[in-house]
Amino acid sequence: MKNFEVKAIGRVASPLTDLESAPRQADEGGPEAWLVFDEDMLEGLRSIRPGEEVLLVTWLDRASRDVLSVHPRGDPNRARQGVFSTRSPHRPNPIGLHQVEVTATDGCRLRVRSLEALDGTPIIDLKPILVSDVNRR
Amino acid sequence: MKNFEVKAIGRVASPLTDLESAPRQADEGGPEAWLVFDEDMLEGLRSIRPGEEVLLVTWLDRASRDVLSVHPRGDPNRARQGVFSTRSPHRPNPIGLHQVEVTATDGCRLRVRSLEALDGTPIIDLKPILVSDVNRR
Repeated sequence: MKNFEVKAIGRVASPLTDLESAPRQADEGGPEAWLVFDEDMLEGLRSIRPGEEVLLVTWLDRASRDVLSVHPRGDPNRARQGVFSTRSPHRPNPIGLHQVEVTATDGCRLRVRSLEALDGTPIIDLKPILVSDVNRR
Repeated sequence: MKNFEVKAIGRVASPLTDLESAPRQADEGGPEAWLVFDEDMLEGLRSIRPGEEVLLVTWLDRASRDVLSVHPRGDPNRARQGVFSTRSPHRPNPIGLHQVEVTATDGCRLRVRSLEALDGTPIIDLKPILVSDVNRR
């Protein structure tokens, strides 16, 4: 099997509504946002606590999927790079990875600090950060 | 839209062939493996160099997708946790994240050190590790 169905389990609610105003990377700052999960995901979220840093996985549904190389940061003066060496949203599977700090929880909603994803972006997974992720760096 | 089509862009080739022998986390060790990408992904891979640490994103196609809480590490003596607080493969979208070191490149194949994914696991993305990922930890 070559194709699989990924399902949105929630959405980003953010004041960021257009691509032009979105920062390119998390370290360039982003507004606070809510992660609004579907009600049937509550059981999966029950162990998340404020103060935790988590990995948010999104589906960047406004990206182009037929792009295999890009000029880094969209700058035509920089040499083209293969997309797998960049964090460009434009790639065969437009998966976004965002390290965020949970600042509050409210049922199926998680408040996070500084998220660079656009309003309405589908959420497809959430993972803890492992000690080994840090130690191996 | 609630569902999206994720496509396999390659497969893991590894001596790990059954779930019982697979380590639960990368820090518990895994064998060397090849990431075998589809030929039409070559352009996307052209900037990957041996020695780089990268984030491999897989689709854990043998996982259960209707699981929302688990006993950590499968130990029934440990309290159930929501899957989004664990790295269990069993979750609504069975996305695997693996930090790996590329040791060699050969066209559409990348050799990596210590990968805990099973032979045949679909590859869905590959991303560089950003400086900001490290600095924010």
